[in-house]
Amino acid sequence: MNVFVIGVGLIGGSIVTDIKAQFQEATIFGVDRNSAHLDKALALGFIDQKAEFNDLYKAHVVVLAIPVDKAKEVVVDVLDSINDSCLVFDVGSTKEGICTNVANHTKRQCFLAAHPIAGTEFSGPTAALKGLFQGKSNIICEAEKTGEPQLKLGEEIFKRLGMKLSYMDAASHDKHIAYVSHLSHVSSFMLGKTVIEKEKDEKAIFDMAGSGFASTVRLAKSSPAMWTPIFKQNKKHVLEALGEFIENLNGFKKLIEEGDDTRIFQEMEDTNRIKEILKGIEK
Amino acid sequence: MNVFVIGVGLIGGSIVTDIKAQFQEATIFGVDRNSAHLDKALALGFIDQKAEFNDLYKAHVVVLAIPVDKAKEVVVDVLDSINDSCLVFDVGSTKEGICTNVANHTKRQCFLAAHPIAGTEFSGPTAALKGLFQGKSNIICEAEKTGEPQLKLGEEIFKRLGMKLSYMDAASHDKHIAYVSHLSHVSSFMLGKTVIEKEKDEKAIFDMAGSGFASTVRLAKSSPAMWTPIFKQNKKHVLEALGEFIENLNGFKKLIEEGDDTRIFQEMEDTNRIKEILKGIEK
Repeated sequence: MNVFVIGVGLIGGSIVTDIKAQFQEATIFGVDRNSAHLDKALALGFIDQKAEFNDLYKAHVVVLAIPVDKAKEVVVDVLDSINDSCLVFDVGSTKEGICTNVANHTKRQCFLAAHPIAGTEFSGPTAALKGLFQGKSNIICEAEKTGEPQLKLGEEIFKRLGMKLSYMDAASHDKHIAYVSHLSHVSSFMLGKTVIEKEKDEKAIFDMAGSGFASTVRLAKSSPAMWTPIFKQNKKHVLEALGEFIENLNGFKKLIEEGDDTRIFQEMEDTNRIKEILKGIEK
Repeated sequence: MNVFVIGVGLIGGSIVTDIKAQFQEATIFGVDRNSAHLDKALALGFIDQKAEFNDLYKAHVVVLAIPVDKAKEVVVDVLDSINDSCLVFDVGSTKEGICTNVANHTKRQCFLAAHPIAGTEFSGPTAALKGLFQGKSNIICEAEKTGEPQLKLGEEIFKRLGMKLSYMDAASHDKHIAYVSHLSHVSSFMLGKTVIEKEKDEKAIFDMAGSGFASTVRLAKSSPAMWTPIFKQNKKHVLEALGEFIENLNGFKKLIEEGDDTRIFQEMEDTNRIKEILKGIEK
């Protein structure tokens, strides 16, 4: 089984690491416009060979793991280059754009839109991890538009990697993910920014930071190259979620201004319900 | 050495657990208005005896580990009840209020204002942990107002518990801590609220949440009884930090609305500097 991974970063690298471990018959071909990353991937051993776009005719599986703006365009070139029985899946954090772009492609049946909800705040081939997807969710969109053999193979790969599959239309995916992922990233980045700005005047500030602060700003380490196109592609839903978040912050600020301790307590107690929700998400 | 802990919750319980381990001569007396918590503390073994306020004359050390609104009042009763050579230290997340309240007390030299920057999002005696303070910061305020023997004993205890000490005036502490701790809590609570509200219409939403979401909302599990008085006591600085955070969020929202990808990228790249800052904070 010839598996091509386009983009040998954190997600692409982690996926083929596990595919190599789970499918002994797999040979992994790496494609990346960053040749240093490709060399690194080869040195780390999660790809067997470097390859190029015009080798794609040999592919049985193509993993498309590049930023969502590029993925949306490149997926068309990939479908143009593969043979009819190949499976191509993406891993991006937005699904409507890419699904729209392949909707009328003659090889639409080869494409499976996927979003494994896994990752770390690091990036590049050295960030790739073994077992990253174990126990994680993977959202499959528009499964009915994927050919039966391709869907079956995709599900087999995801299951062997330990993922829990769920199925959704692309528009619902993009709306929901704005709340449970994209908003957290905006919040972390702006929290980090606020404290860094303050630090300019108050040098000692970070000596006082503890694990709570570290936890809330962890995502502010994330890659701007990955996140800029996600915010662009999911603009409508990100703006909606962000608007509601700002409204809630303004509401809480007003309660503090007014000294309304009863409602401050109540707001926090109501939100403590997150304990139940987080069970099973946290490692 | 008779050590009294007033408030046998997460912080009080963790401190006396380590004091017991580090000072073989210590006998631990627990005081708490919640008698179930006191029974639990005895059963867990981190206190040796239950005690009451009128036993405080026997104390060599008093650890005051109750919410900051109560601590500010109770500290005066404690100072009234102890003998002149006793050390009393608090552990609260605000320092100006308590320092002001004891400023003119005849036993001011017995009091040491401390803020160990450690904790978890859990509370109560069952949340107490061994070694919680190892490697953590502890901010000492107005050290010059504490008597020499008391300061020396306090520093000895904190050092044996593994804490890194730093010294600051109470006003600076309260200002800085608003940015690196209190703001993170408001942000987590309101992020949790925003997503829980959305879930009312969109049942499947939490199936899609991953570890990034869990990390940013972890602090929304925190105790409302602990945090309501902190926001009240540190109102001025919390409002300032929260105002700046909301301003930054509005700024980022505007960039997304305008589709200004260059500046969106730049904002995130500038904030990536948080990586360096977090080194040494994260476990």
